[in-house]
Amino acid sequence: MDDGLELLTEAECRSLLASGSIGRVGVTVGALPVILPVNYAYVDGAIVFRTAEGTKLRAAVDRAVIAFEVDEYDEALQHGWSVLAVGQASEVADEAELATFRALGLAPWADGTRTHYVRLVPEMLTGRRIVAV
Amino acid sequence: MDDGLELLTEAECRSLLASGSIGRVGVTVGALPVILPVNYAYVDGAIVFRTAEGTKLRAAVDRAVIAFEVDEYDEALQHGWSVLAVGQASEVADEAELATFRALGLAPWADGTRTHYVRLVPEMLTGRRIVAV
Repeated sequence: MDDGLELLTEAECRSLLASGSIGRVGVTVGALPVILPVNYAYVDGAIVFRTAEGTKLRAAVDRAVIAFEVDEYDEALQHGWSVLAVGQASEVADEAELATFRALGLAPWADGTRTHYVRLVPEMLTGRRIVAV
Repeated sequence: MDDGLELLTEAECRSLLASGSIGRVGVTVGALPVILPVNYAYVDGAIVFRTAEGTKLRAAVDRAVIAFEVDEYDEALQHGWSVLAVGQASEVADEAELATFRALGLAPWADGTRTHYVRLVPEMLTGRRIVAV
């Protein structure tokens, strides 16, 4: 238990990460905390998401320690779960890896002609389950 | 436009904040970024959420500059929106205000006998709309 919430196992966290497609990145931009939603994929134990050239997100995640969160709730039933991953982000430079990630079909919800891929290998991975009380 | 996304007006941001009930708080815990989901209400231009005694969240938000994010997506249609508020958090101490906030019925999804209320008056409020491209 953690803060009154049921803790998930690491295996549950990884399974839930693999089941999602939209998450939120927490970074620091100009000394201020920022949370931005992203499309992502979970590949070989890493979270992968796209950023476009020149964006605030791209600048902020480059080699920074970032937080990544996924959650799901049923407001009527008042239960749900959240998974939090923290680790150092790195831009994917290897051409073979880039080809793999481009093939994932991560939806380009926002414009951005020059796409970059960022990878987060979780150094800390925790999850919580919320149940109605 | 911002990073290829359509920017929302402040009035739209406030309207969307008022329509939601679950958001995510971004804080720094032990020098690491963390994102944690919370129930919230939007009252008189401020975001109000509960924390329990002794929690990581409570310690982290006390007088800190925090980020708060709400979003909604339709994965099938690939559109949605997100609103981000940043500002200094403060614990509500005034008894009359506490009575007001207790009456909001913010769901106590997690246990925690001694409840504290935290208020965030946004100093920065931005929103983005994502449309399929």
